[in-house]
Amino acid sequence: MNVAMVTPTLSAVEGTPLHGTPVVPGVAYGPVVQVAQEVSAAAIEKYAAVRAPDADHALEEYDAASAAVADGFAAKAARASGAAAAVLTASAGLARDKGLRQAVATRLGSGESLLAAVHDGIAQFVDVFTAMGGLMAERATDLRDIERRLVARLVGEPEPGVVGFEEPSVLVAADLAPADAAGLDPEQVLGLVTERGGATSHTAIIARQLGIPCVVGVAGATALPSGLAVLVDAAAGLVDPTVDAGDAGARVAADREARAAIEQWTGPATTTDGVRVKLLANVGDAESARAAAAAPVEGVGLFRTELCFLDRRDEPSVDEQAALYADALRPFAADGRPVVVRTLDAGSDKPIAFATLDEEENPALGVRGLRLAEHNPALLERQLDGIAAAARETGAETWVMAPMVATVAEAAGFAAQVRERGLRAGVMIEVPSAAILAERLLAEVDFLSIGTNDLTQYVMAADRLASDLAHLTDPWQPAVLQLVAATAAAGRAAGKPVGVCGEAAADPLLAVALIGMGITSLSMAPAAVRPVGAQLSAVSFAACEEAARVAMGAADPAAGRQAVRDVVTARR
Amino acid sequence: MNVAMVTPTLSAVEGTPLHGTPVVPGVAYGPVVQVAQEVSAAAIEKYAAVRAPDADHALEEYDAASAAVADGFAAKAARASGAAAAVLTASAGLARDKGLRQAVATRLGSGESLLAAVHDGIAQFVDVFTAMGGLMAERATDLRDIERRLVARLVGEPEPGVVGFEEPSVLVAADLAPADAAGLDPEQVLGLVTERGGATSHTAIIARQLGIPCVVGVAGATALPSGLAVLVDAAAGLVDPTVDAGDAGARVAADREARAAIEQWTGPATTTDGVRVKLLANVGDAESARAAAAAPVEGVGLFRTELCFLDRRDEPSVDEQAALYADALRPFAADGRPVVVRTLDAGSDKPIAFATLDEEENPALGVRGLRLAEHNPALLERQLDGIAAAARETGAETWVMAPMVATVAEAAGFAAQVRERGLRAGVMIEVPSAAILAERLLAEVDFLSIGTNDLTQYVMAADRLASDLAHLTDPWQPAVLQLVAATAAAGRAAGKPVGVCGEAAADPLLAVALIGMGITSLSMAPAAVRPVGAQLSAVSFAACEEAARVAMGAADPAAGRQAVRDVVTARR
Repeated sequence: MNVAMVTPTLSAVEGTPLHGTPVVPGVAYGPVVQVAQEVSAAAIEKYAAVRAPDADHALEEYDAASAAVADGFAAKAARASGAAAAVLTASAGLARDKGLRQAVATRLGSGESLLAAVHDGIAQFVDVFTAMGGLMAERATDLRDIERRLVARLVGEPEPGVVGFEEPSVLVAADLAPADAAGLDPEQVLGLVTERGGATSHTAIIARQLGIPCVVGVAGATALPSGLAVLVDAAAGLVDPTVDAGDAGARVAADREARAAIEQWTGPATTTDGVRVKLLANVGDAESARAAAAAPVEGVGLFRTELCFLDRRDEPSVDEQAALYADALRPFAADGRPVVVRTLDAGSDKPIAFATLDEEENPALGVRGLRLAEHNPALLERQLDGIAAAARETGAETWVMAPMVATVAEAAGFAAQVRERGLRAGVMIEVPSAAILAERLLAEVDFLSIGTNDLTQYVMAADRLASDLAHLTDPWQPAVLQLVAATAAAGRAAGKPVGVCGEAAADPLLAVALIGMGITSLSMAPAAVRPVGAQLSAVSFAACEEAARVAMGAADPAAGRQAVRDVVTARR
Repeated sequence: MNVAMVTPTLSAVEGTPLHGTPVVPGVAYGPVVQVAQEVSAAAIEKYAAVRAPDADHALEEYDAASAAVADGFAAKAARASGAAAAVLTASAGLARDKGLRQAVATRLGSGESLLAAVHDGIAQFVDVFTAMGGLMAERATDLRDIERRLVARLVGEPEPGVVGFEEPSVLVAADLAPADAAGLDPEQVLGLVTERGGATSHTAIIARQLGIPCVVGVAGATALPSGLAVLVDAAAGLVDPTVDAGDAGARVAADREARAAIEQWTGPATTTDGVRVKLLANVGDAESARAAAAAPVEGVGLFRTELCFLDRRDEPSVDEQAALYADALRPFAADGRPVVVRTLDAGSDKPIAFATLDEEENPALGVRGLRLAEHNPALLERQLDGIAAAARETGAETWVMAPMVATVAEAAGFAAQVRERGLRAGVMIEVPSAAILAERLLAEVDFLSIGTNDLTQYVMAADRLASDLAHLTDPWQPAVLQLVAATAAAGRAAGKPVGVCGEAAADPLLAVALIGMGITSLSMAPAAVRPVGAQLSAVSFAACEEAARVAMGAADPAAGRQAVRDVVTARR
C-alpha cells in the first residue's frame, strides 16, 4: 500500500523566503495550515496489527466507511455550486458505486485483508478508467482521493484534505485535490500556496475564481510548519516567513487599500495617454453570462459552448441549442455589447460522448476542436444553425470563432460556413502554425483570438496539465510572447482585431505587455476584470510598448515578470 | 467479435487515377495484390456452426494454433535482421505467452467458446498494455494481429497479411502491421500503396529503408481489385489504373534509367553553380554505422543512442556505453568524418525502463528527451562521460546534441556539460520555442539540427502517429517551412551550421528547398543519400532559393510539392 507520511525538510523553514509562480495577486499574512495529503502510516500499522475482521464484518466496515465518505462529498456538494458541485456529486456517486463494492467484496471473499481489498478494488477501477483516457482518466485522481478517505475512515483518522480552520489562515499543500479546491471558503483562506502545479492548474483556476491570493510551484512549501506565520505577496510570487508582524500588517493594509481602489474601478479601460482597451468576459452558460454582464466589460470575448454538450449522451437538437445560446446572448444583447461564440472545443481533456474519438495516444495532439468537423461535418453545421438562430432571436451582435485551426484552408472553410449565416467569422490562435500564418488567416477571417493556454502548451511542447512541466507552460515564456506579438502585428497590418482569451489576459502585468504588442482586446474571468482594468488605466501606452519589449527580450518568465513590474512601477 | 470483410467500393476502380502522399519516389507497374486484413466472416460463421469442442480439446486446439502462429513469426524473424527481427521475435514470444494461454484456459473453463475465449483473453492483455501506455501500448497492435492470426488458424483460413506472390506485384493495404512491414521482400514488391498513414508511418519508414516506391494515404486504394495492373508514380503520389501497358513500360524504363544514374552518383553534393551541401547519415548502432560509412556521406548527422538503452532493465555502465559508442564512431573515425551524437531521446513513444515516467496523459508533450535529465541528472552525466571516452578512444570528431530543448537555459546548461568534456555542443530544434529562439540558442551552442518530424508534430499540434491527421503532419506545411527557414537564417547570421535530420531531409524535392533556405547539411537514412545528392547536383543554388520561396508561399503541402517540382524541372 502506497501510503507515505509528509516528511518536512526541517532545515528549509523559517529562515528563508520561498518563491513560486504568481497566480492571483494580493498580500496575505497568517498562520500556515498544511493540508494533510496522506493517512499516517502509524495509524495504518496499528489498525493492521489489531484487526482481522472476517469477510462479512469487513464488508460491513467497508459499507460504513464508504457511506461516510460519500456523505462527506454530498455535504460539500450542497455547499458548492456549478462545476464544483458537479465534481463533488460525481465523487459521492463513485464512493457509493456498487461495482466498486462488488470488487472489494470479491477480494474479501478470496481472503484479502480489508485494506488490501480496498486498494486492489480501487486499483482495478483506476486501470479501467485510465485505459479509457480523457476525462475518464481524470476520474482516476478522484478514485485515489476516495481510497485515501476510505482508509482514513477505516483506521479511525480524519479524512485527508482541508479541515475546518480555527482562524483565517494561509493554506499550504503539495497540490489540491479537485474536491478540496472546489470546497474552499474564501473567508477562511487568506492565501493559497502549493508546491506543485502551474498557472493553469486546477488550484490556480479555482483561486482565480474565488479571488484568493495564490502562489503555485513553491519549492519547499510543504516543509513550512503548521502555525508558522507567513506573508504571502502573491503578485511577487513570494512566501516569506521572515517578515515581522508589524511590517506584514502594514503591507496587508496597503494591499487592501490598493484592492479597494481596484474594486471601485468601473471601466472602461484607458491608458493614461488615452488608448482604449476592450476588456471582455469569458462565459460558459446563461448563469455565468448574467453574472458577467454586471461586470465592467464591453462584451464577451469567449463564450465556451462545451457546457451545452457535456454530460449528454446525444447531441442537443438545433432548437435546443438555439435556446441555450440565446439565454447566454440575451444579457449582452440588451445593451448592444457583442458576444464571441466559440464552436464546440471537444476532444483532448474535454471528451463529449457523441463526438470525440477514443483511445488517442496523445489526445492534446489529436482530433479535437474544429478537427472533429472533418469527421462529423453535420455536427458543426447544426451548431452554426443554432448560433445563427439565437443571434436572430436575441438581436445580439454575434461573432463566431473556431478552436484548433491549423491551416489556411480550415479557416477559409469555416469562415464561409459562418458568413453564409450572416455572422462575423474568426479563428482561435492556439496551434503554433496558425500564429505563424496569422497574416494569411486574416485574409480569410474577420478577427483572431489567441488562446494562450493551448498556444503555450504547443509552442513549448509541454502538457499544460503536467505539473512536472509547469516551468515551461508559462505564458511569460519569451517564445510564446514573440508569437503573440507577431500575431498582433499581423492584425494591425490587416486592420482587424486580435484579442487574447487565455489565462494570460487575466494577469495584470502581462496584460500591460500584451496591449503594448498591439492586442486589441482581453477576455477573462469576470473576477479578473477590475485588477486588469485598474492596472491598464494606470500606465501609458508607451509604457505598455516598453513592457512588451522587455517581456519578449527577457531570459525567462521570472525575469520577464520582474522587468515588466519595473516598467510599470517606474511609469506610474 | 470484431471481424469485418474488406468490402471494395467497386464503383471507384479502374476508371480513375488515385492520389496520395509520396514517400519513396520511383515508378512501378504491376498487378495489385491486396493484403488480407481480416479473417472472412463466412469462415468464422461456418466454424462456429459446426464446432463446439469441450474445454480440454479446445485448449489443445488453442495450443496448436498459437504454436503455428508463433512458428510463423519465428520463421519470419530468421529471415529478417535488426529491428525487424526483434519485432518479429517479440511477437513470437507473445503468441506463446503462458499468461495469455492461462487467460484463454480460464475463460474456456467458465464455458466460453474457443473464439470468444481467445478474443476476451487477448482483450484483457490489450487493456493491460494500453493502460501501461507508451511502447507497451504499441504491443496492443501486435496482440490484435496475433488474434487475427489465431482465429485464421482455428477456422482453417490462411493467416491474414502478406502472402507469397505469384509474380512481382504492387502491394496494396489499408495499412501494414509492423510484422508485415518488417517482412517485405523488395524483389517481390514493385510498389507499396496504403490507404491510411502519413509520411512518418511504419509503412513509410520501412519502404524508405528498402527503397520500394511508396505512396501512402491513398483514398480508395483498398477498393482496387487484386490482379488489376496499375502504374505507381510514387514521386507524384499517383496510383493509375488507366495507363496502358506500353506507356507504363516506357515510364518504368525511363525511371529505371534515372534510378541507375542515381545509383552511380558518388558525391559529394554540389549544386550546378558550385555550392557544396553536406549529406550525412542517420545511424543507430555499430552495424548501421558500418553500412552508412560505405555510402557517399561526409559523416553522421544523427547517431541515435536509444538502441543502446532499449530493452534493458538497467542502465548500461559508462564503460559499456563507451564501448557501444566507440563501435559506432570507429567506421567514421578512420577517415576523419565527423559524427553528431544525440543524447538519449527516451520518453513519449520510446520508453526506457529505468528512465521514463509512466502514465503521462500526453506523452509526446511530457517528460522526454533532455527533460529527463532534470529528474535524473546523473543519467545524462554518465552518458556524456561514455561519449567522451568513446571519442578519445577512437579519435573521432564527435559533436554532441540534446533532444527536446525548449529554452535558452536548457541549451546553455547542456552546452556547459558537453564542453567541459572537450566536445562540440549543439541542440535539436524540435520544439517550436527552440526554433523561435534560434538566434538566442546559437549564442550558447556550436550548431543546431532540426528534427522535422517532431517539429511538424508540435507546430501543427497533430500527433505524428495519428493517421487521421496525416494531412497536417507533413513537413511541407508552409508554417513548418517558415520556422525551418527562420532557424536557418539565424544560423547564417551567427555563422554556425544548421542541419536537418528529420524525414524531410530524405525527400529530394524538399531537400532542394531546404538548401535554398540556408540549411547547411542534410542527414538521412543511407538509402536516401543518392537520390537526394543526385537531385541537388542537378540544380543551381538560385533554383534552390526559388524553391524555398515557392514552398513557403504555397497554399498547402500539395501545392508546395508541385511548385518546387516545376522549379526543379524548369531549371534542370
